[in-house]
Amino acid sequence: MDQVARFVLDNANAFEDKLCELLRIASVSADSKYHGEVRRAADWVADLFRSMGLATETIPTIGQPLVYAESPPVPGKPVVLVYGHYDVQPPDPLAEWTSPPFEPTKRNGNIYARGATDDKGQMITHLLSTMSWLKTVGQLPIQIKFLIEGEEECGSEGIYDYLTKPGVKEKLAADVVVISDTSQFGPGRPAITYGLRGIAYYELKLQGPKQDLHSGTFGGGVTNPAKALAFMMNALTDESGRVQVPGFYDDVLPVTERERDELAKLPFSEAAFAKQLGVAALSGEEGYTTLERRWCRPSFDINGLTSGYQGEGAKTVLPAKASAKFSFRLVPNQDPTKITPALEAFLKSKCPAGIQMELVDMHGAPGCVTSLESPFVAAAAKAIEHGFGTPPVFIREGGSIPIVTRFAQLLGADTLLLGWGLDDDNTHSPNEKFCLADFHRGILASSHLWNELASL
Amino acid sequence: MDQVARFVLDNANAFEDKLCELLRIASVSADSKYHGEVRRAADWVADLFRSMGLATETIPTIGQPLVYAESPPVPGKPVVLVYGHYDVQPPDPLAEWTSPPFEPTKRNGNIYARGATDDKGQMITHLLSTMSWLKTVGQLPIQIKFLIEGEEECGSEGIYDYLTKPGVKEKLAADVVVISDTSQFGPGRPAITYGLRGIAYYELKLQGPKQDLHSGTFGGGVTNPAKALAFMMNALTDESGRVQVPGFYDDVLPVTERERDELAKLPFSEAAFAKQLGVAALSGEEGYTTLERRWCRPSFDINGLTSGYQGEGAKTVLPAKASAKFSFRLVPNQDPTKITPALEAFLKSKCPAGIQMELVDMHGAPGCVTSLESPFVAAAAKAIEHGFGTPPVFIREGGSIPIVTRFAQLLGADTLLLGWGLDDDNTHSPNEKFCLADFHRGILASSHLWNELASL
Repeated sequence: MDQVARFVLDNANAFEDKLCELLRIASVSADSKYHGEVRRAADWVADLFRSMGLATETIPTIGQPLVYAESPPVPGKPVVLVYGHYDVQPPDPLAEWTSPPFEPTKRNGNIYARGATDDKGQMITHLLSTMSWLKTVGQLPIQIKFLIEGEEECGSEGIYDYLTKPGVKEKLAADVVVISDTSQFGPGRPAITYGLRGIAYYELKLQGPKQDLHSGTFGGGVTNPAKALAFMMNALTDESGRVQVPGFYDDVLPVTERERDELAKLPFSEAAFAKQLGVAALSGEEGYTTLERRWCRPSFDINGLTSGYQGEGAKTVLPAKASAKFSFRLVPNQDPTKITPALEAFLKSKCPAGIQMELVDMHGAPGCVTSLESPFVAAAAKAIEHGFGTPPVFIREGGSIPIVTRFAQLLGADTLLLGWGLDDDNTHSPNEKFCLADFHRGILASSHLWNELASL
Repeated sequence: MDQVARFVLDNANAFEDKLCELLRIASVSADSKYHGEVRRAADWVADLFRSMGLATETIPTIGQPLVYAESPPVPGKPVVLVYGHYDVQPPDPLAEWTSPPFEPTKRNGNIYARGATDDKGQMITHLLSTMSWLKTVGQLPIQIKFLIEGEEECGSEGIYDYLTKPGVKEKLAADVVVISDTSQFGPGRPAITYGLRGIAYYELKLQGPKQDLHSGTFGGGVTNPAKALAFMMNALTDESGRVQVPGFYDDVLPVTERERDELAKLPFSEAAFAKQLGVAALSGEEGYTTLERRWCRPSFDINGLTSGYQGEGAKTVLPAKASAKFSFRLVPNQDPTKITPALEAFLKSKCPAGIQMELVDMHGAPGCVTSLESPFVAAAAKAIEHGFGTPPVFIREGGSIPIVTRFAQLLGADTLLLGWGLDDDNTHSPNEKFCLADFHRGILASSHLWNELASL
């Protein structure tokens, strides 16, 4: 391992040059006029794999090609699947870039370019760590499979379709999935994101009278669908925010003491967070901290409300219709397909006389979590400590990353989200950047990760 | 009185001719290209008053002129103020009229023209009854003051401004205001509308975080203003629809036993009403019938809801803002200016932590009611029985007619809303009509009304 680490340190300039080569390719997947560049980026990644001697394929899809590469099996050792993407967001608005988006430029210890952190700069750390092993030791201590896609910024249609094909599950079979496409908790605080929430998103449509009525002539005698909507939306939670749908919490994986301890250790100020959001006070489920509420507990939010007159001034209308878009964030092991019928029955039981309701199930995805007790988490933590000189913090994310859930479902593997970026990296904005020190720490951490996983 | 009644019967054709003269004038107040015709209608009405020998004035206003006329005082007898309007709604869409809107045409016992029932045909019944008295008896048994405006269909700015002028209150002083601009309860069922509801209309604006947030990353940890809105709107009433604002019902004038009896006698089918509205069931305040709920009891309605994402599909947004337009219908003696501060205090007490609220008071007007025990109501009922051959039913209206409330406030007089029209008269629509038999019955009833009021 020492010679691998030395190689990483000695080749810092060469690695930065490699990164710059990739960043110069304007692989904007959302805009067809860049699609030649998208293909060129796929070829560049495939060439890098081939230059390391890995078995490499460019897999056509219904969209942009996938680049797949794998090292030889190592019996008795874990198999890792590394996922990343070689496409980038559009660079607009161009005028706001200090240096051109596809001319990578080093300033203040950062490299500035579209894709610097999302995801070329992070993804390539795992390729360069692998190269470091192969150039020194000559082989990897575990089997690594790489699957790098080119449509992450525009819907990932190609990879989703590919994952449904026969034989793919077996081809990609792995014990752990490694993805570096997230952020550290803060500068100098590398993080392992070990859980994501799922989602169940609905629209409730209520119909009262067959047409809008005059609220003077009819008000008080007929059920107002906007009032019914307020009643039904309000019925979904109690005042502390606890969801009232029967069985909703039955499958919730509780937060462990270890997790609560780890979360409590994070330098997170509720007062500073409230100030950042511009609110006088935070709120949420009784008995949980703000981070627990956002990351580890299910939640209910109304995403949109529509009814009656929304223009200027007053209109004395008793609306015929009212509707709400709303969603639950789910935690492991909640199943959106179990929640929908319970929700529908609950809402029907609350639907006032004189109102017809329709519940539209818009989309659902389960959450996923890797146990903090997982040996893979322990291995990643050790690797990060080697790479960054400080142990990682353990965080979760309140949103969903659909491809992670998809891999978890398909492969049954744990997932390690190892973010080398920072929250202020301007992903999806002008002047995207990546801290070069973190780039090198990421390569070193990744080199150690292969070693730590082999030691399990 | 017999000779007056005979005159009314003998002059049916002449009265219809008079009506047709007025209906031929295209006095559309909302459209400036018709404003010459609006002035011509004012002149026509003034000329009719002058032809009867009444003291007549055309009063300029900030808008269209008012036509005022009065007969001499009759000491010891009530003074009546008759209000009506000589302007009409626009006739569009013209193509849907069977006969042209300003060429009055008789078909099926009706006269078809814009303004036939709203309000030229109804208003003129009181002028023609007065003419009948003057042409036969030579004088009226009471003093009648007429105030006929020309902007009822476009906001009545002129008359509202006029009513604030010094001396106007004294000039218009009357014991009872008579208005025929409403409908019978049904064909052959003349009605006295003896009460109107008032209104208090608000907008509640809630602000949560200073900008829209990602509902995954933040959901569960910060108060969602759309949820707060559902909670606060729901808190305004209990499940039976009873308003929860402290003191809201304190000043409510209860429905009397006499009123309940009269309302119960009306041929009103809740099942047919529900079917007409297209709802499976009606709802409302416990202990009251649908007509009582709509006419005699205060009500609460949400008139509009706005928050977050309202387009197609799903957006995982935790909205920064949510707002509702809502209103209470008030009954006599509720005072909107007392309700606003109680409402604001109530909503503040319900406003969740992390939400800033703003309550906008959009407009308010009290309701008004004339006691069924009023001698003027009894006199009108007798007059209607003479004119229509059947006693009237006693109804109220759930909406507000602002000018009625204004007269009640200014003059402290009872109001008699004597509707000769029918609900299917197509007011504000193509093919507006007025039943000619009801036109003649209205003139006869009006003639008797002056006599009955004199007998009090």
